[in-house]
Amino acid sequence: MIIDIHGHYTTAPKALEAWRNRQIAAIGDSAAMPNASELRIGDDELRESIEANQLRLMRERGIDLTVFSPRASFMAHHIGNEAVSREWSQLCNDLVHRVCQLYPDNFVGVCQLPQSPGAKPEGCIPELERCVRELGFIGCNLNPDPSGGHWKEPPLTDRWWYPLYEKLCELEMTAMVHVTSSCNPVFHYTGAHYINGDTTAFMQLVQGDLFRDFPTLRFVIPHGGGAGPFHWGRYRGLAQEMKKPLLKDHLLGNVFFDTCVYHQAGIDCMAKVIPVDNILFASEMLGAVKGVDPETGHNYDDTKRYIDQLELSAADKRKIYEDNARRVYPRLDARLKKRQR
Amino acid sequence: MIIDIHGHYTTAPKALEAWRNRQIAAIGDSAAMPNASELRIGDDELRESIEANQLRLMRERGIDLTVFSPRASFMAHHIGNEAVSREWSQLCNDLVHRVCQLYPDNFVGVCQLPQSPGAKPEGCIPELERCVRELGFIGCNLNPDPSGGHWKEPPLTDRWWYPLYEKLCELEMTAMVHVTSSCNPVFHYTGAHYINGDTTAFMQLVQGDLFRDFPTLRFVIPHGGGAGPFHWGRYRGLAQEMKKPLLKDHLLGNVFFDTCVYHQAGIDCMAKVIPVDNILFASEMLGAVKGVDPETGHNYDDTKRYIDQLELSAADKRKIYEDNARRVYPRLDARLKKRQR
Repeated sequence: MIIDIHGHYTTAPKALEAWRNRQIAAIGDSAAMPNASELRIGDDELRESIEANQLRLMRERGIDLTVFSPRASFMAHHIGNEAVSREWSQLCNDLVHRVCQLYPDNFVGVCQLPQSPGAKPEGCIPELERCVRELGFIGCNLNPDPSGGHWKEPPLTDRWWYPLYEKLCELEMTAMVHVTSSCNPVFHYTGAHYINGDTTAFMQLVQGDLFRDFPTLRFVIPHGGGAGPFHWGRYRGLAQEMKKPLLKDHLLGNVFFDTCVYHQAGIDCMAKVIPVDNILFASEMLGAVKGVDPETGHNYDDTKRYIDQLELSAADKRKIYEDNARRVYPRLDARLKKRQR
Repeated sequence: MIIDIHGHYTTAPKALEAWRNRQIAAIGDSAAMPNASELRIGDDELRESIEANQLRLMRERGIDLTVFSPRASFMAHHIGNEAVSREWSQLCNDLVHRVCQLYPDNFVGVCQLPQSPGAKPEGCIPELERCVRELGFIGCNLNPDPSGGHWKEPPLTDRWWYPLYEKLCELEMTAMVHVTSSCNPVFHYTGAHYINGDTTAFMQLVQGDLFRDFPTLRFVIPHGGGAGPFHWGRYRGLAQEMKKPLLKDHLLGNVFFDTCVYHQAGIDCMAKVIPVDNILFASEMLGAVKGVDPETGHNYDDTKRYIDQLELSAADKRKIYEDNARRVYPRLDARLKKRQR
C-alpha cells in the first residue's frame, strides 16, 4: 500500500474561494458576513474536482491513499480574527471531510486549525475535537506563524503552545508543522515561507526539550524538513554545542520528515542522513510545483519516482510508503486495521 | 592555491565587544557615546587572536587565503540608528583591515555595511567606497534583513536597493548576502535565521529579473545557498511556472554558492545540482559550528575534506578552490596578479 501523507485540497470548486472573498470583505461588518450555509457545493462538483486532479494522478502514479487537508495557502490565519478563522476552518475541514466520505478508500482527513495571530492555541481545541470525533480526522496542520510571514508567536517549544499539545497527545493526533501564505512581500510562499517555516520549526525543536515534556507528541516537518537534511551536519553540530543528546535521541522519536523534495539529488541526500524510520512518502499534490521537469520528462512532484530510485531494500521502501505513516499516525493505522476486518 | 571565501573575525579581542557594549548603552545619550579612538587593541593582540585560531586552522587544513569580514552576528544592524551602525561598521572594518595588513598573504578584506532598519541602502556607499579605496577590500556583506529577524525591508529585487547595486557594479565589488543575528526569538541565528536568509534571498532572485538590470552584479549566497540546492527541483519548477528562463540562464551568471555545508551528503547534493563554476570553497571559520563530528572524527567546519571526497576532476576542484573565487571577486584576482608580479 502506498500512502501519501501530504496532500491539500487545492482544487476545491471556485464557490469556496468566492465565499472566502465575501467573508474577507465583510471583516468588521458583521451584518455582511456570509453564513456557512450559503456555501453550496454539490457532491458531483466535489467528485469532479478530485477525480480530474488528485485522484487521477494518484491512480497514474500508484498512490492508494492520501492524507488530505485543506489548501495550506488558503488557511491565511493572518486574515481577520479568531472568529473569522474558526468559521473558515470549519468550512474547509467540512469540505475535506466530504471528499473523504466520497472516497473513503483514497482519502483520510487532516484538519486546518482556527489559529489567529496572538490568539491562544487552546482556542483551536474545540475544532480539533470536532474533527476527530465527528469527522474522523487523523491529524492537524499546525502553523508556527499565524502572522503569515511576520513571525510574532513564541517558538513551538514555548509553554504558550502546551495546552494544544496536551490535547494532541490525548487524542493521538499527529501535527504537520505547516505555515500558510505569506503577507510579507519578502517571502514567496512555496519558495521561501514554507521552507523557512520548516527550517525554523526544526531548529526550535533542536534548541528546546519539548519531547521531554511530551514524549508521545509527533510532528511531521514537511517539504523534506526544509533545509534540515541538507544542513544535517550543521544541526548535529549545533545540538552538540548546546549539549543536547544526539539528534536521533533528541528528536527522531518524535519528529518525522516527508519526501516533498522535487528532484533525485535532494531525496538522495535525505535518505543518506535521515533514518529510514523517519521518512514518510508524500508529494504535496496538487500542486506546489505543477510542471514537468525537462531533465526527466516527469512531473517535479512525482516523488514516488525518486523514492523508487533509492538503493534501499524492499522492506525499507515499504516503511517509507506505508509502515512509517501507520506508526506516526496511530489513528490512520486504527482506521486501516478496522477496514481490513 | 586554496581560497576560503567566507571567514569572519569572530575571535577579535574582548575590547571590541566591550566598546560595542558601551556604544549600545549610550544609545539615546550622545554625551556617553564612546569615541572610536577609545578602542585600543595592539598588533600583538590581533596577532594572537588570529594565529591561535583562524590562521592555525588554515595552516592545518592547507587553506592559503581567507576572504575575511567582521563577525556576522555582531553586525546587528537592528541596534541603534544609522549613525550607530556607521560608527560600529567603520570600527569593525578597520580591525579586519589591520588583520589583512598583518597577514597580507593570508587574509583579504570584505566589509560590513552600515545598514540600519528603514535607512536607504545608498547610505552605505561612503563606507563601501572607503573600504575599497582606503582599505583595499574586495567585497561586502549585504544584509537583506537589517531588522534582525523581523523582515521589514523590501525584497532584494526592489528598486529600493538599486543605488547600492549601481555602486557595487561600478566598483566591481561582490556582495555576499548575509544576515546578522536575530532579535526575533523564533529564529536561532546560525541554525534558522542564516539559512532562512539565504533561502529567502535566493527565492527573491528567482522571482525577479534583477540581473537584466545589473548584468555584472555578483551575489554569493552563503551556507551552501540555504535550502537552495536541496530543493533545486522546487526552484527549477517554480521558475518554470513563472515563465523565467532556466535557472542556469536566469541566475547562475550572477549568483554563486559557498560550501559552508557541514557534512558529506550535503556537499554531494550540492555538487550534483549546482554547476561547478558556481561553487566557491568556504568554511565559515570560526565558528558557526565549532565541534568535532563524532561520525568522522574531524571538525564539522573542515569543509575541505568534503570537497576532496567529491568525484570531480582536478581541474574542477581547482575551480572550487581558486578559479571561481578569482572570477567572482575581480578585485581579488587583480590583487593576486599584482602580488605574483
